[in-house]
Amino acid sequence: MLPESRPALECPDVSSQPISRFPVPELADLPGDVRERILAVQEKSGFVPNVFLVLAHRPEEFRAFFAYHDALMEKAGGLTKAEREMIVVATSGANQCQYCVVAHGAILRIRAKNPLVADQVAINYRKADITPRQRAMLDFAMRVALESHAVEDADLEALRKAGFADEDIWDIAAIAAFFALSNRMANVTSMRPNDEFYLMGRMAKGK
Amino acid sequence: MLPESRPALECPDVSSQPISRFPVPELADLPGDVRERILAVQEKSGFVPNVFLVLAHRPEEFRAFFAYHDALMEKAGGLTKAEREMIVVATSGANQCQYCVVAHGAILRIRAKNPLVADQVAINYRKADITPRQRAMLDFAMRVALESHAVEDADLEALRKAGFADEDIWDIAAIAAFFALSNRMANVTSMRPNDEFYLMGRMAKGK
Amino acid sequence: MLPESRPALECPDVSSQPISRFPVPELADLPGDVRERILAVQEKSGFVPNVFLVLAHRPEEFRAFFAYHDALMEKAGGLTKAEREMIVVATSGANQCQYCVVAHGAILRIRAKNPLVADQVAINYRKADITPRQRAMLDFAMRVALESHAVEDADLEALRKAGFADEDIWDIAAIAAFFALSNRMANVTSMRPNDEFYLMGRMAKGK
Amino acid sequence: MLPESRPALECPDVSSQPISRFPVPELADLPGDVRERILAVQEKSGFVPNVFLVLAHRPEEFRAFFAYHDALMEKAGGLTKAEREMIVVATSGANQCQYCVVAHGAILRIRAKNPLVADQVAINYRKADITPRQRAMLDFAMRVALESHAVEDADLEALRKAGFADEDIWDIAAIAAFFALSNRMANVTSMRPNDEFYLMGRMAKGK
Amino acid sequence: MLPESRPALECPDVSSQPISRFPVPELADLPGDVRERILAVQEKSGFVPNVFLVLAHRPEEFRAFFAYHDALMEKAGGLTKAEREMIVVATSGANQCQYCVVAHGAILRIRAKNPLVADQVAINYRKADITPRQRAMLDFAMRVALESHAVEDADLEALRKAGFADEDIWDIAAIAAFFALSNRMANVTSMRPNDEFYLMGRMAKGK
Amino acid sequence: MLPESRPALECPDVSSQPISRFPVPELADLPGDVRERILAVQEKSGFVPNVFLVLAHRPEEFRAFFAYHDALMEKAGGLTKAEREMIVVATSGANQCQYCVVAHGAILRIRAKNPLVADQVAINYRKADITPRQRAMLDFAMRVALESHAVEDADLEALRKAGFADEDIWDIAAIAAFFALSNRMANVTSMRPNDEFYLMGRMAKGK
Repeated sequence: MLPESRPALECPDVSSQPISRFPVPELADLPGDVRERILAVQEKSGFVPNVFLVLAHRPEEFRAFFAYHDALMEKAGGLTKAEREMIVVATSGANQCQYCVVAHGAILRIRAKNPLVADQVAINYRKADITPRQRAMLDFAMRVALESHAVEDADLEALRKAGFADEDIWDIAAIAAFFALSNRMANVTSMRPNDEFYLMGRMAKGK
Repeated sequence: MLPESRPALECPDVSSQPISRFPVPELADLPGDVRERILAVQEKSGFVPNVFLVLAHRPEEFRAFFAYHDALMEKAGGLTKAEREMIVVATSGANQCQYCVVAHGAILRIRAKNPLVADQVAINYRKADITPRQRAMLDFAMRVALESHAVEDADLEALRKAGFADEDIWDIAAIAAFFALSNRMANVTSMRPNDEFYLMGRMAKGK
Repeated sequence: MLPESRPALECPDVSSQPISRFPVPELADLPGDVRERILAVQEKSGFVPNVFLVLAHRPEEFRAFFAYHDALMEKAGGLTKAEREMIVVATSGANQCQYCVVAHGAILRIRAKNPLVADQVAINYRKADITPRQRAMLDFAMRVALESHAVEDADLEALRKAGFADEDIWDIAAIAAFFALSNRMANVTSMRPNDEFYLMGRMAKGK
Repeated sequence: MLPESRPALECPDVSSQPISRFPVPELADLPGDVRERILAVQEKSGFVPNVFLVLAHRPEEFRAFFAYHDALMEKAGGLTKAEREMIVVATSGANQCQYCVVAHGAILRIRAKNPLVADQVAINYRKADITPRQRAMLDFAMRVALESHAVEDADLEALRKAGFADEDIWDIAAIAAFFALSNRMANVTSMRPNDEFYLMGRMAKGK
Repeated sequence: MLPESRPALECPDVSSQPISRFPVPELADLPGDVRERILAVQEKSGFVPNVFLVLAHRPEEFRAFFAYHDALMEKAGGLTKAEREMIVVATSGANQCQYCVVAHGAILRIRAKNPLVADQVAINYRKADITPRQRAMLDFAMRVALESHAVEDADLEALRKAGFADEDIWDIAAIAAFFALSNRMANVTSMRPNDEFYLMGRMAKGK
Repeated sequence: MLPESRPALECPDVSSQPISRFPVPELADLPGDVRERILAVQEKSGFVPNVFLVLAHRPEEFRAFFAYHDALMEKAGGLTKAEREMIVVATSGANQCQYCVVAHGAILRIRAKNPLVADQVAINYRKADITPRQRAMLDFAMRVALESHAVEDADLEALRKAGFADEDIWDIAAIAAFFALSNRMANVTSMRPNDEFYLMGRMAKGK
């Protein structure tokens, strides 16, 4: 833990790192609705998250993917948006998905207004600064992610006892299931997280 | 292996077995497009596969799910439709998903015009009556299903050597990824396969 | 799920598929007692299940194998014959043994007079149409198959509470243990299930 | 590593430790052939290994078990008797079977005339004092014990290159398979190794 | 990814979160050498990393722990200090150790002058911006962390081919081994990372 | 189990087996304090356990290793020295560490004055002749060794109920953690147990 006095890490030039193992389309070549969606995200975020560019290689799948995503992540319901992102970060950590942990970690920090919780949840959600209710939520989400074949009535009963409605339980399961898909696509395409995500939402607690 | 002379299996009455742990909507209560889709399937198949009824509980997710499904399973490309179903059956077997193995096993038998291959692929694809190219396809699909974090360039290279185009490789990965989602939803909802599926396509080889 | 309009599955010619990685003896070359046993099975079943031919390569082991098998599977006791076959199918599924799942799946369908239960038990016994008592039986059988080192007094106590006598518990354990052997021999010899098994017992419930 | 100056281990009285979770028959109550076999072992070894008493609870299974055992362990062939015991010890270690590691460890020490090799093979066969040929044998035996579903032609080819005949390969597989059964019965019955085994064959190398 | 319009994450008050499950000593009560070490760290870093306070509960173990740590992490040799930290972050991620990933992630960012590499290595080192030599280093470190029993001569040979001297190989192994200890102590004590670590080294690349 | 009538095990000459994959220093070349420690052990034990020679390759790490070892294994406290060795043997068995199981197995036999318990604990501690309190201790030690990320307050509570003070709990965890390090170093160096250890403490119970 001394100041670094030796030469820094031998380090590959990453300026030209690809963002996918598959072809990435030019915006101009995309169907209008897909391009519109991407431009809207860019407008709001200030950059285009790479998931949009990587999946735009297949416009039909792109449309279904984001329709599914929005149906689960942008809806009203018993889970806060931050809680939905916690499910994404915890299960994506278990699946070792670099894109989803980095990108959704940023979104979680912002939505939770908490600069610490994303790293905590990604590494070991059992030790994160979360409520007992959120702990029960993540226990179930991890079970869905890692051993859904073993889910039993008792698992649902435990969630009901923790205060979740059945519709919330569907949401937890569906988010974990959707990111089972998403993590696999990101891992196979070797989807690269945008550099911007790493620092987002880290600055201040409660601000 | 003697004729059974003892009383048959003590057996629960299954006539009223639920098809989901969550509410199943009435057709009359569904949005028009969802109902239309379900009626069209019934018309063609002679019955409504339970996945349509179980997922109709959430119309928005229903639409995204089947749009995604069709984009992957009904498209043209280097994989035959039977091969796409082989990916479903193999990975669903690994995920112990009863609905998907039974329902897509039936579809595989029909599309492959082969009454044996579905059970073989579901139990141990390494011993199935498939070609070396299909074996390479399933090796990769299982890797995506079970350890996508470890997929490397070498895995894609092996598929190219087995004759797959890069678009085929995306298809294999995307089908395995989509059924990672599907298996988890079926396992959490305890989705029950329709009795009809068990016997479909078993009668004759090549007919 | 549309009717198949594309060319059917590219498919290897299986008419000359071997039934074992090791030499398979001619009936005429076998010791008399082994040949008699095989002819008796053929008489009763209408065909010779391949396990008899594959294991006849070693007559001494053949005799011990079937003596053990009959001592466990044909005896009287607290478990029905169908329940014994359920243990075989569930543990053979976990061991990915193609021969045992297909062959004993057929026997299970016949003995249980139930065309669905074998596939259900093979894929995920937790979701099969079985009684709570049978569920307890299969929980224990899977523990014996997969982690026998962790069996404790509490496991036996749970079975007693589910209504099993200690002799039944021995039976469950011994069947799971015997098929641990059988699955491994089938997997190493690449024992091929006879085509006949796939369709047996699938026709009608309760008939 | 100082001389023990504190009170010795708090230690349960083991003089009345049961040798099985199930009833152990009196010799006098056993069928003649079973009793004869047990008395013959006692005559030769000076004590009755507990496996004989524990399994005698079921005379029919006892007969099949020992007939199978002898067919594999006492036969002529390309494997020495010591090598056969090495397979037992390595796979029983992987299965955490106390009885088989202790009892067959003793037999291995005696047959190999080597007081060290049994403990080495039980803990980590990769570091045991064995030949490259024996290493190939144990690699395959462990694969049969732990993941027989993944055995492929290439595994057999590797053994042939290491000098094994196909009949030897069957022997290796069959021994690993038979002790898959044996380990499970020992673990479920909680079969206790006789105290005598622990010290047998430990005294001198090559004597 | 819309602006959060719903109430922020329900969130426990963490201001009084304990840093250990065990008693944490007052500085004033510590032996002089331990206190000196802690004050020196505070002087240099501006805060006291919690690992010093948590382990100070046992001064003798504290001394051995940090002597071991310094012998491995502060020494000269073929690995840069940043590379040593990469080993820590990768293996601590595999062990789900929150303290070590967060604290050593910060040190890695600083020593590598790279704000991205720590998160990349923690989540999935196969996709990190590292050189092929560093990839070989981490492959071996993960093997030591997760399955050291299977390390063979061939693993060392692969490292030599990647350009590592035998002394470097010892270093890689010893760092992975030391943090096997460290991760376990952090997990059992539930050691809490200081808030300061989360943001350190994230600001600029190459500065 | 017949007397061996066939030629004994084909067996490599082990007289010149290396004790490490890395250089082993001459005593004369070592720093004085390291040499003194080694000579003291030799004086007491009659031979030099190889761990001292193998680790002396790195004197600074040697000093920290044995300081840590002594702080945990030679201290007073609620655990007997035999119980500390039980933790070492059980977790080293799980890690397949040949050196630690053989060497600490010997020490455990001596300290427990029990010739059987070391082999029992190494193979399957659930079936060892130990007290319920020791069983709880080993359950926790194994959890620390194999899945420390999942340790929760409830694990500590269970130990308190079994009669352990919090300082004892730290001891159990720290011993399991220290041997996580030790096992990995022994596995990577391929540390060879001295022949002397195999027979130590096996002669008589209670003597």
